[in-house]
Amino acid sequence: MTCECGVFGAIACGDYPTQLDIAQMICLGMVALQHRGQESAGIVTSQGKSSKNFSVHKGMGMINNLFNDEAIKKLKGNLGIGHTRYSTAAASEVVNCQPFVVHTAHGALAIAHNGELVNCESLRREVLERGVGLSTHSDSELIAQSLCCAPEDVSEHDGPNWPARIRHFMTLAPLSYSLVVMHKDKIYAVRDSYGNRPLCLGKIVPVDAGHTNIGETRAEGWVVSSESCGFLSIGARYVREVEPGEIVELSRNGYRTVDIVERPDYKRMAFCIFEYVYFARSDSMFEGQMVYSARLQCGRQLAREFPIEADIVSSVPESGTAAAHGYARESDVPFGEVLCKNRYVGRTFIQPSNRLRKLGVAKKFGALAQNVEGKRIVLIDDSIVRGNTIGPIIKLLRDAGATEVHIRIASPPLQYPCYMGINIPTREELIANKLNADQLAEHVGADSLAYLSVEGLIKAVQMNKADVNPIKSGYCTACLTGEYPGGLPEELSW
Amino acid sequence: MTCECGVFGAIACGDYPTQLDIAQMICLGMVALQHRGQESAGIVTSQGKSSKNFSVHKGMGMINNLFNDEAIKKLKGNLGIGHTRYSTAAASEVVNCQPFVVHTAHGALAIAHNGELVNCESLRREVLERGVGLSTHSDSELIAQSLCCAPEDVSEHDGPNWPARIRHFMTLAPLSYSLVVMHKDKIYAVRDSYGNRPLCLGKIVPVDAGHTNIGETRAEGWVVSSESCGFLSIGARYVREVEPGEIVELSRNGYRTVDIVERPDYKRMAFCIFEYVYFARSDSMFEGQMVYSARLQCGRQLAREFPIEADIVSSVPESGTAAAHGYARESDVPFGEVLCKNRYVGRTFIQPSNRLRKLGVAKKFGALAQNVEGKRIVLIDDSIVRGNTIGPIIKLLRDAGATEVHIRIASPPLQYPCYMGINIPTREELIANKLNADQLAEHVGADSLAYLSVEGLIKAVQMNKADVNPIKSGYCTACLTGEYPGGLPEELSW
Amino acid sequence: MTCECGVFGAIACGDYPTQLDIAQMICLGMVALQHRGQESAGIVTSQGKSSKNFSVHKGMGMINNLFNDEAIKKLKGNLGIGHTRYSTAAASEVVNCQPFVVHTAHGALAIAHNGELVNCESLRREVLERGVGLSTHSDSELIAQSLCCAPEDVSEHDGPNWPARIRHFMTLAPLSYSLVVMHKDKIYAVRDSYGNRPLCLGKIVPVDAGHTNIGETRAEGWVVSSESCGFLSIGARYVREVEPGEIVELSRNGYRTVDIVERPDYKRMAFCIFEYVYFARSDSMFEGQMVYSARLQCGRQLAREFPIEADIVSSVPESGTAAAHGYARESDVPFGEVLCKNRYVGRTFIQPSNRLRKLGVAKKFGALAQNVEGKRIVLIDDSIVRGNTIGPIIKLLRDAGATEVHIRIASPPLQYPCYMGINIPTREELIANKLNADQLAEHVGADSLAYLSVEGLIKAVQMNKADVNPIKSGYCTACLTGEYPGGLPEELSW
Amino acid sequence: MTCECGVFGAIACGDYPTQLDIAQMICLGMVALQHRGQESAGIVTSQGKSSKNFSVHKGMGMINNLFNDEAIKKLKGNLGIGHTRYSTAAASEVVNCQPFVVHTAHGALAIAHNGELVNCESLRREVLERGVGLSTHSDSELIAQSLCCAPEDVSEHDGPNWPARIRHFMTLAPLSYSLVVMHKDKIYAVRDSYGNRPLCLGKIVPVDAGHTNIGETRAEGWVVSSESCGFLSIGARYVREVEPGEIVELSRNGYRTVDIVERPDYKRMAFCIFEYVYFARSDSMFEGQMVYSARLQCGRQLAREFPIEADIVSSVPESGTAAAHGYARESDVPFGEVLCKNRYVGRTFIQPSNRLRKLGVAKKFGALAQNVEGKRIVLIDDSIVRGNTIGPIIKLLRDAGATEVHIRIASPPLQYPCYMGINIPTREELIANKLNADQLAEHVGADSLAYLSVEGLIKAVQMNKADVNPIKSGYCTACLTGEYPGGLPEELSW
Repeated sequence: MTCECGVFGAIACGDYPTQLDIAQMICLGMVALQHRGQESAGIVTSQGKSSKNFSVHKGMGMINNLFNDEAIKKLKGNLGIGHTRYSTAAASEVVNCQPFVVHTAHGALAIAHNGELVNCESLRREVLERGVGLSTHSDSELIAQSLCCAPEDVSEHDGPNWPARIRHFMTLAPLSYSLVVMHKDKIYAVRDSYGNRPLCLGKIVPVDAGHTNIGETRAEGWVVSSESCGFLSIGARYVREVEPGEIVELSRNGYRTVDIVERPDYKRMAFCIFEYVYFARSDSMFEGQMVYSARLQCGRQLAREFPIEADIVSSVPESGTAAAHGYARESDVPFGEVLCKNRYVGRTFIQPSNRLRKLGVAKKFGALAQNVEGKRIVLIDDSIVRGNTIGPIIKLLRDAGATEVHIRIASPPLQYPCYMGINIPTREELIANKLNADQLAEHVGADSLAYLSVEGLIKAVQMNKADVNPIKSGYCTACLTGEYPGGLPEELSW
Repeated sequence: MTCECGVFGAIACGDYPTQLDIAQMICLGMVALQHRGQESAGIVTSQGKSSKNFSVHKGMGMINNLFNDEAIKKLKGNLGIGHTRYSTAAASEVVNCQPFVVHTAHGALAIAHNGELVNCESLRREVLERGVGLSTHSDSELIAQSLCCAPEDVSEHDGPNWPARIRHFMTLAPLSYSLVVMHKDKIYAVRDSYGNRPLCLGKIVPVDAGHTNIGETRAEGWVVSSESCGFLSIGARYVREVEPGEIVELSRNGYRTVDIVERPDYKRMAFCIFEYVYFARSDSMFEGQMVYSARLQCGRQLAREFPIEADIVSSVPESGTAAAHGYARESDVPFGEVLCKNRYVGRTFIQPSNRLRKLGVAKKFGALAQNVEGKRIVLIDDSIVRGNTIGPIIKLLRDAGATEVHIRIASPPLQYPCYMGINIPTREELIANKLNADQLAEHVGADSLAYLSVEGLIKAVQMNKADVNPIKSGYCTACLTGEYPGGLPEELSW
Repeated sequence: MTCECGVFGAIACGDYPTQLDIAQMICLGMVALQHRGQESAGIVTSQGKSSKNFSVHKGMGMINNLFNDEAIKKLKGNLGIGHTRYSTAAASEVVNCQPFVVHTAHGALAIAHNGELVNCESLRREVLERGVGLSTHSDSELIAQSLCCAPEDVSEHDGPNWPARIRHFMTLAPLSYSLVVMHKDKIYAVRDSYGNRPLCLGKIVPVDAGHTNIGETRAEGWVVSSESCGFLSIGARYVREVEPGEIVELSRNGYRTVDIVERPDYKRMAFCIFEYVYFARSDSMFEGQMVYSARLQCGRQLAREFPIEADIVSSVPESGTAAAHGYARESDVPFGEVLCKNRYVGRTFIQPSNRLRKLGVAKKFGALAQNVEGKRIVLIDDSIVRGNTIGPIIKLLRDAGATEVHIRIASPPLQYPCYMGINIPTREELIANKLNADQLAEHVGADSLAYLSVEGLIKAVQMNKADVNPIKSGYCTACLTGEYPGGLPEELSW
Repeated sequence: MTCECGVFGAIACGDYPTQLDIAQMICLGMVALQHRGQESAGIVTSQGKSSKNFSVHKGMGMINNLFNDEAIKKLKGNLGIGHTRYSTAAASEVVNCQPFVVHTAHGALAIAHNGELVNCESLRREVLERGVGLSTHSDSELIAQSLCCAPEDVSEHDGPNWPARIRHFMTLAPLSYSLVVMHKDKIYAVRDSYGNRPLCLGKIVPVDAGHTNIGETRAEGWVVSSESCGFLSIGARYVREVEPGEIVELSRNGYRTVDIVERPDYKRMAFCIFEYVYFARSDSMFEGQMVYSARLQCGRQLAREFPIEADIVSSVPESGTAAAHGYARESDVPFGEVLCKNRYVGRTFIQPSNRLRKLGVAKKFGALAQNVEGKRIVLIDDSIVRGNTIGPIIKLLRDAGATEVHIRIASPPLQYPCYMGINIPTREELIANKLNADQLAEHVGADSLAYLSVEGLIKAVQMNKADVNPIKSGYCTACLTGEYPGGLPEELSW
């Protein structure tokens, strides 16, 4: 189960040429979004004065490997956007790397998006029938070609009028996307009207450099990012989220809302609840609260729903630690570490021999034997997808002397596919579609196993929302409940 | 400050051909030692019957990248040794990769070692003056050529008599080395008489495979490893440490001590105390105790030596967590997470702009703002070397709202170079040689900063030793105290 | 001065599935066109039954490196097209590799072309103003998007009607292109109405396999290629050239002319004369004659225009050898080898030291000293571009003892840029724009230097044409005379 | 059949620091020897003042790829040696790249050699029994360790005395080797006493740089090389060959013979005759004559031995061209080109389909159809090894219309293995051991086929020797006759 993408944008304020380190900042901002996609990345910058002066660097791989000083040096300009991407193997090609740059009648346009167009097939058909060829199967190219064609109410002699084109596209495509679109000297930050994918704004503030308070240290600007987690490290302060359906324009003069597309009824709003559970970095802020806090609440709620007598509460490092601390506090069982993670076990590795396979022990972890011996353990994990890893971990703990191992999952069973940008295995591969909690406990060798309830999850993530809404609503739980926001397009079936 | 190497060996018991998965096991065993060296790795296996049938695969890089199914398939045999290595840039060449294989008058010999020969210059001179050329500057080649030349008391018509040759070498080279030497159908596991580097034995036990309990699942054998941390994952059980000065022979018939070289007085025994503090994986066992437990004791001792009033005890993930838990328990201040680590920040990265440099914020971490705001924090780290990273972390916490940040280091100030296999910066680069604790606190912006005392460290690591010795002694603390085991060879100066 | 591209296509005849080795054949056919471009290559094959079953493999580099058995195996189908490409550094990117595949309302379309659209800027403007974005600056994408949009006279309910779309494109774009376009189960082979770039047809004939005359050895099919040189090696026979302005359709039923666009007056026909002089492989056939024969005639004509008393006629291997044999026969001076070429001198190499630079000797060649000593040499080369290489060669021959060195160039002075697919240095870099023949002789240290006349060159290439036209006409000599076919588009200036 | 190696050395004369471009010169000199080995290469330079200042750069691959400006810049010094190497796949490893550098009691020593020690097994045994380990199976390491051990008559207090050590080694190892050995500020150039492998000296002369005649242009020095072919391109003049058994010392003061080891009877001298036939570049000088001239004589002799009525004499480019010119002159049949070589057909390529295999046409060549049609052709090749390539070429010519194809091979049948540095297929693979000339003619589809006789070959290469010896003798013809120089060591068998 993998998140598809992260988007980032930055623009310098004031008179150009500025001394703001746009390319470095975008690069660093993207490193903070690397957990949202590790297969390819790209940055496009603009010198602002003309639509021809785009600098582009993108490719397969991690940001650290793709961007070196030479690459950064070539990314000239006062504004830019970046993208980091995960993708299924089939489409894992250089040609699909974002940001996507397209040359239009009004100059070059760069687009980066997070999400997946649920009605891409009908949008695609429409573009093709307009006599336009598409060279990839990517949503980015589809969005780009959609924006290239001015809608009827846009008069050509008014110039490109990108906000009107973006609004037109948004009426055609309900979800799911958080977009950054760059043209000449402006960046448009756009979130679909359901608010499915996150997007937030930040302000670049002057650096307090004491006596040497000159030049770039006083520079100001604005950033837009899928998550706020990297803001401090680039000298930016979190401002607010882009609202669902909102089109925000970033320019040298600051940011302003240029349009808000009509939103669905608040009950049908659909922020992806798995951003809280799994995708986002724990120091990011959504809806006025830290993701870590929401995870801690999930752990507390889980302890209330499924308490158990035990000697120690622990987690599978590093995914379930926040929830484990929450569970420990609520249940008054002490938290302790029981597993040591080997950071060097890579994804591609040798086939284990039959003996090693039968051994069935987690190679990625070591047991802290003296913490485990003779203990009854509650082990918290954030979610279960295929259910392959938990069994070997339990075996490892038992081999190290644990007397009981109780599994508590800080999210409900994962049962349905996602059509909004998250890569979930097929229904057949999801263990929750094959075994219920008790069957799974037996299958993996746990003394007990329980999932957080859907209601419990929603309650937990809303507990500390800054702007608590009296009516609890607004999350996409499609992968847990099969209820898709806006209904499922007819072209999709499962 | 980096550990230099890890060594590993494995041998199948019983009648050959065995079905034991020697190459896979060594590979997996080395992955568990990867933290001891990531620059190069190698495996040599032997088919046992003849000294000519060695299979070799080695190269630069991480084990996951070097070893694939094809490579493993070519590593035929019933026994083998492996090595994973860190090295300074200068000598970072393929030609220096271990295990080192040398053709002798008695057939091929493979050698892997962890450590550094303190008197390598005089050993080298002796070999050269014997009319032997050396093609590298590595200790491995030096050890190999030393073993090639039979000492006077070895009669050639008795065959090679490797134990006698190894003993002879050990009398010439006091420290520091843990060695695995393979010839034909035997592996010799050797630890220098001061016991400076760790080395332990494990037993491969039959896999309980239920009804399908056949073939390789019943196979048995023996392993030798720098650390015990990977034993469970390969189906082995920890047996004991190789004793200082001991030569253990592993063969198809099991293991036996073939010789023990005279050890120095017990007060002068010198097991590297930084294996406890920093190098070893926390689930490894030394002297009958888990490394994690020793680190927890260091944290407790630190709390006793330098208590402070605070709201939360935390650690720099992931290095100081065990000590932080110990400090929290001893001081009754709750443990809580305050930093989120970005796993994707690589070593080689773009030069930060001036603005970013002045910003001075830790790019590798995010602050868990809502856990930090308004809090007095005790932050535990395991050690301080150059002192570059702690300042930006403190700044990050303050920017996120921490009211006080107190630094506690779970080891004493690092002040002296190591000549026994550990890569420590020059004395000039070690911050402890430039600033005392209070000066450093001011320099990094901490409200206070304190180091664990040398006595406290020794006390802590001895607290839970299984075979507690009435007289506290036996550790190499040269990098902390400047007292080198066996004295410093005249050829070394600092 | 470099040729831009080679195109190739192949289709199996008869009922599918055929056993014809389409992918191997295209691959081998492209190896025979490798001299026309070494920077990137690609093959697209179609399974014929549906427009969705395209297999694509393309990338940077030489064919030998790009295509291995695994790649070939994935290129399934009964028909396919290939492309090999040279390009200027700026556009040397994977995204520009051909064949270009585009998804249209009628399914996938693959395009490969050789040439350059002289009015690409106005074609581009038209496409952009239609509301279509272009993601590259390549002519291939421009051609593709042009074909995607049906012209007014194409009724959509007749299906795609590619011939009509191609004809429409041809009326908009006068030159220069030789195209292969693949859709579903057909390949269209197209040559611009001026006949600027070559393109010819071949028939795949059954292999005479004696007693084992079965299966694929009896397979038949058709090929289309920029040059005929590789036909024998893939079991094909040369049939004829595609006529200027002709659209040939290749299908499982054979080939047929589906349309011929109006050609300019025969005097204005413009086959690139440098295909004879330099680009084509000497065993290719154009206009009924072997390129080698035309080059031999150029040498004969050169001997008639600029005879000289000498002991030996030779060439710069391997470019001027055919002309040298012609010169030798006409002048009755014996041909002999004087230079030995080092095949291993690569393009990118170390900077020579000052001493080596002053030495000024050709590193790529060795002098056959005993053939040269005391001799008067006539040295033939096919053309002079920047004039950098001939001086060092003359120095090498003089150092080896030559008494006289007379240079004869088997083509006229190169003075103007090409806008039709040939990469020629700027006018300033062309030595013929700086020095006349006598000045150049002095500059390079030759005893004399002469160029073939334009009239002589045209006469020579027409000497052995199979269908000799009474009026001598039909070649593009723009780079020699500045007379561009169809005039120079206003958007171009030099 | 492949030559194993090329060696090169260069030293600057006069007072150091010199401005002579030693590293560039060696690099360029090795490019001129690249035909002698393309698998790996290396250069070692010395700053002369101390035996510690060696700079080394070596690796797998061609010189152009291994050496760039950065690598050259690091190769500091006034003298250096280089090596280019072919090797069988098994030993194709970085560790075997030459020059081999070894640290001795007298400082570093670098060795590069061309040849193969026929008694390497007994030399090896002797070294091992001396208590020395060998880490490779290479002759270079064996030579190095042999030189490391001073012979009894060398007194240690006289310093290393390399000439005495080299002489001692030469008495132990009869053949085959041409060596360059560098220590501190001297290079020793050594040729075995049978003169099996070539080695020659050259003088670096001042560059005539006109008015700017300063600095490095006046520099002088000495070079030693396997062949003289690259001398002109680096500003050197051919001086003479190193004599069989001679040890030449090159120093800043020039060159001098320091010793000459006793040579065998002149009748038993054994210069490899295949250097003339095949290995050497045609512009190299051996025994006072140009290799090209010897090959031309071979062609003349072949015409005398096996004349045939024909219309055209041609060659397989580029291997048989010199002999073809000789055959044409002697027989008065005109020389003409019939084949066009595709330079881009690489070694590793896709598996041909069955159809292509049955087609049996040479993919590497195109036929010049109009030169071939209706013609009787004599086709000259320099040698036949496995006999795989000639058949397809004949088929190509016949398909293009040749009426008769007569094959003439400018060397005798190849029947025996070589133990002196040449890689020849096994006896079973050599076609001459399976078919006689007439059978081979039928097998490959030739109208006739004939080999030059052994006597004819010897006569031809002696025809133009500068110092014609009244008694015809002195060549190693082992691969043709089975008569090995010095007899075959007992340890070898075939």
